[in-house]
Amino acid sequence: MEQLSIDDPIFALATPWGESAIAVLRVSGEASLTLLDRCFRGKHALSETRSHTVRHGTLVDPDTDSVIDEVMAAVYKTPTSYTGENGAELFTHGSPAIISAVMELLLRSGFRQASPGEFTQRAFLNGKVDLTRAEAVNDLIRARSDRARSLAMNRLSGAVENRVNALKEAIADLLASVEILIDYPEEDITVEAGTWRSSLAQIEEQVARLLGTYTTGRIIQEGISIVIAGGTNAGKSTLFNLILREDRAIVSDVHGTTRDYLEGAACIRGVPVRLFDTAGIRRTDDVLEVEGIKRSDRMIANADLILLVVDGVTGLSEDDCALLEKYKGRPLLGIWNKTDRSSLPCPQEFIPMSSLTGSGIELLEQKIDELFLDEGSVGTGEPVIDSVRQKLLLEECASHLAVFRNALDKELPLDLLAVDLKSAMDSLGEITGAITTEDMLQRMFSTFCVGK
Amino acid sequence: MEQLSIDDPIFALATPWGESAIAVLRVSGEASLTLLDRCFRGKHALSETRSHTVRHGTLVDPDTDSVIDEVMAAVYKTPTSYTGENGAELFTHGSPAIISAVMELLLRSGFRQASPGEFTQRAFLNGKVDLTRAEAVNDLIRARSDRARSLAMNRLSGAVENRVNALKEAIADLLASVEILIDYPEEDITVEAGTWRSSLAQIEEQVARLLGTYTTGRIIQEGISIVIAGGTNAGKSTLFNLILREDRAIVSDVHGTTRDYLEGAACIRGVPVRLFDTAGIRRTDDVLEVEGIKRSDRMIANADLILLVVDGVTGLSEDDCALLEKYKGRPLLGIWNKTDRSSLPCPQEFIPMSSLTGSGIELLEQKIDELFLDEGSVGTGEPVIDSVRQKLLLEECASHLAVFRNALDKELPLDLLAVDLKSAMDSLGEITGAITTEDMLQRMFSTFCVGK
Repeated sequence: MEQLSIDDPIFALATPWGESAIAVLRVSGEASLTLLDRCFRGKHALSETRSHTVRHGTLVDPDTDSVIDEVMAAVYKTPTSYTGENGAELFTHGSPAIISAVMELLLRSGFRQASPGEFTQRAFLNGKVDLTRAEAVNDLIRARSDRARSLAMNRLSGAVENRVNALKEAIADLLASVEILIDYPEEDITVEAGTWRSSLAQIEEQVARLLGTYTTGRIIQEGISIVIAGGTNAGKSTLFNLILREDRAIVSDVHGTTRDYLEGAACIRGVPVRLFDTAGIRRTDDVLEVEGIKRSDRMIANADLILLVVDGVTGLSEDDCALLEKYKGRPLLGIWNKTDRSSLPCPQEFIPMSSLTGSGIELLEQKIDELFLDEGSVGTGEPVIDSVRQKLLLEECASHLAVFRNALDKELPLDLLAVDLKSAMDSLGEITGAITTEDMLQRMFSTFCVGK
Repeated sequence: MEQLSIDDPIFALATPWGESAIAVLRVSGEASLTLLDRCFRGKHALSETRSHTVRHGTLVDPDTDSVIDEVMAAVYKTPTSYTGENGAELFTHGSPAIISAVMELLLRSGFRQASPGEFTQRAFLNGKVDLTRAEAVNDLIRARSDRARSLAMNRLSGAVENRVNALKEAIADLLASVEILIDYPEEDITVEAGTWRSSLAQIEEQVARLLGTYTTGRIIQEGISIVIAGGTNAGKSTLFNLILREDRAIVSDVHGTTRDYLEGAACIRGVPVRLFDTAGIRRTDDVLEVEGIKRSDRMIANADLILLVVDGVTGLSEDDCALLEKYKGRPLLGIWNKTDRSSLPCPQEFIPMSSLTGSGIELLEQKIDELFLDEGSVGTGEPVIDSVRQKLLLEECASHLAVFRNALDKELPLDLLAVDLKSAMDSLGEITGAITTEDMLQRMFSTFCVGK
């Protein structure tokens, strides 16, 4: 995405790398079909094929005449394609060897590899989608739970776009009524100011409500990372396996069994979770274990939640207390483990569990739910944002509105008031992409996956 | 594939599970389009869409009216589809959450999950491909190198089918001339017998040549598994990283660093290699290490090649000698490692290497090439088989031909000779599927990937 030339021929693998029945390679660009004609052999040339039609043929290296694969090709033409340009999808057999060979062929045929999100960026630049929908495409792909999928689908259908446009219109109405008074200064401003304040309050409330969905939206989309920490042999790996519901980590009674940290993905009450099992913390001279413990520290520093596992049989050790002290102020849940074998009472602020029998897991999941999910804010069909870009622009809008309110209170000149409202509208315009900069587009689309 | 009902509606994910721009879900069956009509909302019903046409729409849960995803759907109709039946490909956003939701929707809509290879099996049963091409589809997908892809593509284009049919025809000619003599016993059999022997020799030579491609074909397709074995700290993990050309295994100077075995994929001279790094073999009381060593033993038992790494600085240890003794008769290459630091001379039968500096890697690759690849047999455009099924049937054919030759020498009655030739033809017929049993089809297609 060095430059925004938007019709040079690009390609990308649109399916994951690996063995499967089908792989999809996607091309776009005004000349893309003519370029494909050189290496696609079928009954009809792709450039002469009607849009939204699938053709059977072979991909052939035009230099050696050797057949690379038997393929199907779906043809899309300007302006009804996804990008708005001419383009095609090549359905090849899904083998890494074929994907490599086809990619090499496309490179030699005059295509370049697409940047992340470049297809959707072209769709935006050609007026096919606004930016909130473009971001929703990425969110949909990254959705790791059904809740995330459903919220992203909502955004793709235009829920955020419509809400933002409605807010923009409300501010535009407010602005119009301010501008009328600029033109007719004989009108009574005090009567109007009251009406303005009440519309402003409504707008501000709506902006705040949309902003309020951000935390929940982000957690549902991105998920949370949870690190299991604690002394050696406290049962961390057993807890790890329990939450993942699989036999992932090697579990043994030997202290320091887990050296490298392990990672697994789970879903707790619809929230995707990345779970990390770390090396047990203990004083040791074993260079490998020291390396493992260093890695644990890094993991813990970046976690959204720490599960501190304490061996309920032996009770709180000195090391445990040191860890509690060390992680003070961090989001942490204490697990009093091995209740099936422990005779010691579970301290009040700990969750009693037996990761061996599974008892206590529901309470743990409930606590995690309570910590991270404000159920109320994710209502029925309401737009929920998860994009930091949208959040920052909404905050910008909110602060322009606050400046407007302040100016109104101080009875500043009307044309100054108008400027604040215009700025607030611009912030909203940036959310949908009505107003945009090349730099912002680059930053946004670079987070997309290749092929979208 | 419990029964061969070939028009009930089936579906399968045709792309790998994971995040990507696009996922493809494939359906087939006479009723498949009508079933999709209930959950696909677009301008036109899919059942009323022309074959080979792509439609835009949304997938909707008909019970709740909630939108699952925005999709494209390619429609294929009897008889020009891949399977020969009505069918479609649904292009969804490539997120695991969406794939799950769509699969669940299809299940509830009356589709069942396809068995491995069921789409291609239907294509075979509907006369769209013979069995050698069907197998080539699977080979293409599993191709892990460009050589494997090219050979499989050759088979998909009908190279094996054509060769087998030509052989069958040659035997049929032979059979015809035997049968003429049955009908006209007055003819001189000794003159004919000479002609028969020379045609037989040609046919036998061709069958043998095709059979001879099997070993190479299988190695190019399947690849070989190589296990790195040897004492602790001999540099096994460094060699592992060197062959993979990446920093995969944790390398340290501590004995017994590698506990779990590690696996990596590489390509040596066009041959796919699965490489295993094992725990070092040494006498130990550490329960974890003992478990690791047990796993190493299992890996080594199944390997195509053992690389026995010896520490060239300390020389052959007692343990190394024990290993050499233990693996006698197994394909094994000895690596004399650490030549950069060793002052000991490398024994003649070992390959001198420094896995740290990379010296010796070319010699190692050459030795592996020599061991596994008979370059001559994989010529230009010649059919190469890699299917054990085809190999067994060719062997069967060859043995029927041998019986025929024997019967000819013994001047057995002509109608007995004819039976042998018919059996030889039947074996060839089974290769292409002209003759087939349900049981054989089941066994064959069960090795396919789901979605093909």
